[in-house]
Amino acid sequence: MFAVIGDPVEQVQAPSMMNALFARHGIDAVLVPAHATPARLATVVRGLQSTGNVDGLLVTVPHKRAALDLADVVAPAAALSNGANAMRRAPDGRWEAGNFDGEGFVRGLRAAGHEPAGRHVWLVGAGGAGSAIAVSLLSAGAELTITDLDGHRAHTLTERLSPHFRGRLHRAAGPVAADLAVNATPLGMRPEDPLPFDPALLPRSTVVVDIVMKPRRTALLRTAERHGLLVHYGAAMLAHQLELYLDFFGLGGPRA
Amino acid sequence: MFAVIGDPVEQVQAPSMMNALFARHGIDAVLVPAHATPARLATVVRGLQSTGNVDGLLVTVPHKRAALDLADVVAPAAALSNGANAMRRAPDGRWEAGNFDGEGFVRGLRAAGHEPAGRHVWLVGAGGAGSAIAVSLLSAGAELTITDLDGHRAHTLTERLSPHFRGRLHRAAGPVAADLAVNATPLGMRPEDPLPFDPALLPRSTVVVDIVMKPRRTALLRTAERHGLLVHYGAAMLAHQLELYLDFFGLGGPRA
Repeated sequence: MFAVIGDPVEQVQAPSMMNALFARHGIDAVLVPAHATPARLATVVRGLQSTGNVDGLLVTVPHKRAALDLADVVAPAAALSNGANAMRRAPDGRWEAGNFDGEGFVRGLRAAGHEPAGRHVWLVGAGGAGSAIAVSLLSAGAELTITDLDGHRAHTLTERLSPHFRGRLHRAAGPVAADLAVNATPLGMRPEDPLPFDPALLPRSTVVVDIVMKPRRTALLRTAERHGLLVHYGAAMLAHQLELYLDFFGLGGPRA
Repeated sequence: MFAVIGDPVEQVQAPSMMNALFARHGIDAVLVPAHATPARLATVVRGLQSTGNVDGLLVTVPHKRAALDLADVVAPAAALSNGANAMRRAPDGRWEAGNFDGEGFVRGLRAAGHEPAGRHVWLVGAGGAGSAIAVSLLSAGAELTITDLDGHRAHTLTERLSPHFRGRLHRAAGPVAADLAVNATPLGMRPEDPLPFDPALLPRSTVVVDIVMKPRRTALLRTAERHGLLVHYGAAMLAHQLELYLDFFGLGGPRA
């Protein structure tokens, strides 16, 4: 059994996607949603970790950072991005935290033909998802410029990552000319949200990328398309994480 | 979401039966198995109770007694039988413990035409299930004679129940002539188990009842049938609890 922990959790798409994947691969497992408020997160996670037939957890907003404190071991991608989106019971019984947001994002880009190595990416949003994406884009060989309305947050992230990726990490207060422009903020989930940035200000060769999954065609992507820019949908990030989760949970590998 | 907690939990039939019932009634809910060792029971239960979308728990062997300490309120049937097999989150947020083993058992008897009111029942086994069955049989108006290999356990149970059911509760060291003879021990689950009692020693009018569900036709019931006695299968107890669980969890009531 697996659970995905969030607050709220009703909108989370991992159960329907993972359970379909389990069924497709003939894996006798189920992923259930678990609602935990921040005050009860530790109790809920400790309970699930103490349940003998629970082998792994997915973690979503707003718990990714707090999940680090509930793991015995933290993988580099989770430590660098300062948040976990998955935990598993290792063979020795310890709980390991990982983060596959960034790797899922990069795999999604590549599958769509947008190889980030050697490209310049403008990343808007230095929160949990933005941090994970930054780590993976840099690890994949991209040059990165980070913008966040919260200048302190952008500063903290660049300070944390700079020692690992010297010379390829910058900060900016507003739009920069780049090969890809990525929205890693939650802006776009609600109809009344403003655009995270204005695609009209970008070169026509820029690929505009959103991590917002619902709605699929966000206002940002619609605006970008109106201006003739290529777009990349948010759904790809989760879709390309599913196989990573399977591997992490020890359910991957060759199958008939 | 609902969970059934046991150790072991692989053999527990509640998930397949309850999930089929949810589907039949169009109830958007799922019951998952949760394995908890005695040492981890409190952590697992507190975790589930702290999960916002978990509204109820079923509790099975060996946790029924310990579950009482993890409830804020204990219903009379659970208190009298000294064990809970279900817990629910009340509207005020408190967790209530109930026990439906006995009522399920009595409903199963009645559905098969074996009304216990005014009848004499010989009950073998004064453990968790036996205690719950004793409470419900006495509440239904039966006269009861209890036998347990562990004389202290039979004594404790009769001492606890006698004040509530004066004059209708007895103890015996061996077989008594009764209208119904009930096995409430686990004997019969394993092929090598001895019979809990010998049906050959009972009057031919005795109905022999087993609470063991797997195998369906236990050695006890096969032997009873060979001697021409009527039998009643263990599956009835759980089958007749399902609707009680639905009501307890607030999912019952009239449906299309």
